[in-house]
Amino acid sequence: MWPSSAKKTLLSTPTSPLSLAGSADWKTLLANSPTSALALPDLISELQKITRDSGRHTAVVDNTSDEKVAAFYPHFLAAGLSVVTPNKKAFSGPIELYSDILKYKSNDVAGSKGPLVYQESTVGAGLPIISTLTDLVATGDEITKIEGVFSGTLSYIFNEFSTPKGGDKKFSDIVKFAKENGYTEPHPNDDLSGSDVARKLAILSRLVPELKDALPQGYLSVPTHSLTPAPLADVASGEEYVKRLPEFDADYDALNKEAFNNGSVLRYVGVIDVKKAEIKASLETYPASHPFASSLSGSDNIIAFHTKRYSARPLLVQGSGAGADVTAMGVVADLIKIAERRS
Amino acid sequence: MWPSSAKKTLLSTPTSPLSLAGSADWKTLLANSPTSALALPDLISELQKITRDSGRHTAVVDNTSDEKVAAFYPHFLAAGLSVVTPNKKAFSGPIELYSDILKYKSNDVAGSKGPLVYQESTVGAGLPIISTLTDLVATGDEITKIEGVFSGTLSYIFNEFSTPKGGDKKFSDIVKFAKENGYTEPHPNDDLSGSDVARKLAILSRLVPELKDALPQGYLSVPTHSLTPAPLADVASGEEYVKRLPEFDADYDALNKEAFNNGSVLRYVGVIDVKKAEIKASLETYPASHPFASSLSGSDNIIAFHTKRYSARPLLVQGSGAGADVTAMGVVADLIKIAERRS
Repeated sequence: MWPSSAKKTLLSTPTSPLSLAGSADWKTLLANSPTSALALPDLISELQKITRDSGRHTAVVDNTSDEKVAAFYPHFLAAGLSVVTPNKKAFSGPIELYSDILKYKSNDVAGSKGPLVYQESTVGAGLPIISTLTDLVATGDEITKIEGVFSGTLSYIFNEFSTPKGGDKKFSDIVKFAKENGYTEPHPNDDLSGSDVARKLAILSRLVPELKDALPQGYLSVPTHSLTPAPLADVASGEEYVKRLPEFDADYDALNKEAFNNGSVLRYVGVIDVKKAEIKASLETYPASHPFASSLSGSDNIIAFHTKRYSARPLLVQGSGAGADVTAMGVVADLIKIAERRS
Repeated sequence: MWPSSAKKTLLSTPTSPLSLAGSADWKTLLANSPTSALALPDLISELQKITRDSGRHTAVVDNTSDEKVAAFYPHFLAAGLSVVTPNKKAFSGPIELYSDILKYKSNDVAGSKGPLVYQESTVGAGLPIISTLTDLVATGDEITKIEGVFSGTLSYIFNEFSTPKGGDKKFSDIVKFAKENGYTEPHPNDDLSGSDVARKLAILSRLVPELKDALPQGYLSVPTHSLTPAPLADVASGEEYVKRLPEFDADYDALNKEAFNNGSVLRYVGVIDVKKAEIKASLETYPASHPFASSLSGSDNIIAFHTKRYSARPLLVQGSGAGADVTAMGVVADLIKIAERRS
C-alpha cells in the first residue's frame, strides 16, 4: 500500500500492511510521515522497485480527481503498472491522452501479461455500467442507444421538481436545500452546468466502437445544455449563485408546466444515439409512464442500454451512483479483477 | 471447438475452427460426423489430450440443461478443465454436488492456475446478476435482501393479467396465448409451478455467505407457491392443462381484484431475505408505485439488491432474462473472462 496526498507520502511493505482503524491508521501515519510527496516520476521508480522486490504485479489506484495524475497514466502503464481509478479526467478529456492509454493497456490483448486499466467507478460508481457495456461490445452486440440519468445531483433536483403529479416546489429552493445538505458541489454550477454528465458520456461513447473517435476534445465536444441561467454563468461564489437563483424560478416553472401539460416530466439526461452519431447532455421530457419518470427516486442514476439483442426493451441498471461507499466498491472490484488476471 | 449432441461428437482443431454459416457449418458437420457421442469420461480424456497438445487452458461449455452433464462438473474440474454454463442444474440441486464443485473450482484462490467456473446465464441470462452479486460480496458489502421477477414467462403473464389500472383479461386466456406463442414451456406447469424461480433463488442464495448452506436439497428446499390449481397438478398433457385452466379463472380473478382494491398488482417473485433467513418463491402484491408494478413490461426480469451500501434504495437490474441471444451473450462473456485469466 502506498497512500499519497499532495503533501506527504507514506511507504509500507507487503509484510506490514496499513491499518484502517486506531491510532496507527493510515491517515495518521500519512500525516506524520517524514517523506514528502513524491514527484510522479519518482513514484514510478519506487513502484518498479517494489514490483522487482516482490516479484508481483503492481497496480496504481488513483483516488484523486486530479488532471495531472490522469495525464500521467501512460507513464504508469509504460512502466508496466496497472491503473484503477474513479477519476474521470483521463477518459473524458482530449483524445490524445485517451489514445496513449489505449496504446499501453493490454486489457484485450490475448496472452499479454501487460498492464491493465479498470475504471468502473468513473460512471455510476459501483453500478455495473462500464462492465456491462464492455461485455455487450466484446460479445458482438450492437449498441443503438445509451440513455440515462447520470448525475445523482440532477436526479435529486428533478425528482423533487418535476413529478407525474406536477410539482409545487421552487427550483431555487430545491437547489438551495441540495447545496446545504451536501448533495451538490460547493458551487452548484459544477453540477447544473452538465459538464459532469458530459464527461460520463465521453467515457461511455469511447467504449462504443462506432464512436471511439467521435469526441476529439472529450467532454468539451459534447453539446451540453447548461441549467445555469446565462446571467449567473460568471458568478464565482456558490452562495451568491444560490441567492440569485430565485430570479429565474419563473423560467424553470414554465418549462415544468409545459411538460406537465403534456403528461410528462423533466429529466436531465445524457444520450448517446449511435445511429444518429449524436451525443448530448440535455434537459428532456419523458411521459409519466417512462421508467425515467416513474421509477426514479432520491439521487438514483438510471442507465438504459438499447442494443440489437435488447431491442424490444432496454437493459436497465439503476441505483445510487455516487458516494464514498459505492465508489470504493467499484474500485475494489476492479482491483480484484486485476489480482485475478495478474496473480 | 468440440460440439457434441446426445448422438454425435464433432472434433475440430485449433487450426481449423468450426464455421457458423454455410454448408460446412457446425450443425451440418455434427450431423454428418462419423464419431458417435463420447461418454463423459472419454470426453475428459480427449480434452486433456487437446490441453496437452496445445499447451493451453481448456474450458468445457455445457449448453445443455442436462442433469447428468451437470453431475459431471466435478470430474471436469478435477481434470483441470474450466466450466462455463447456462445450465442451472448443478448450482440449484443437492448441496453435495455444489460442494464438490466448490472444492475444485479456483475462482477465488489467489495465485492458482486451476480451473474456473462461470455461470452468469443461469440467472437472468446475459443480465449482470451473478457478477453483480459476486462483486458486492467480494468487496465486503452485506446483502440484506434480494427480490425480483426471475421468470420471463411469469413476468409476461402477470404484466398482462394485473396492472395498476386493473385487468380485463382472463388468466387462462393469457396462459393459452403464451403457450401458443412459445413463451411458456410445452407444458405450462413447468413455468407455473415456480420451480424455475426456485432454482434461481437456490443459485443466488448460495452466493450469499450467510445462506450458502441454507438449502440442503437446493431448489427443493425452497418454499414454492405453485400457480397450478391442485386438481391440475397431475395433468400430463400441456394441451389438456390449458383446456381445463378456465375452470379456475374465478379464483385467479378474485386474487387480482383483491390486489386492485388495495391499489396493488400481483407479481410472481423470488425473495431472499437474509435477515430472516427466508427464501421463497411466491405470488405477492406490490403497490402501483413500486418498480415491480410500474416499470415492468413484456417478459422482462427485474432484480433488486438491497444491501448495506445500497440501503436507502436498492441496486436494480432489469431487462430480457431469457432467449438464445442474451443467454449466449452471458456464456461468451464468461468465456472471455476465462480467456483473460488463463491465457
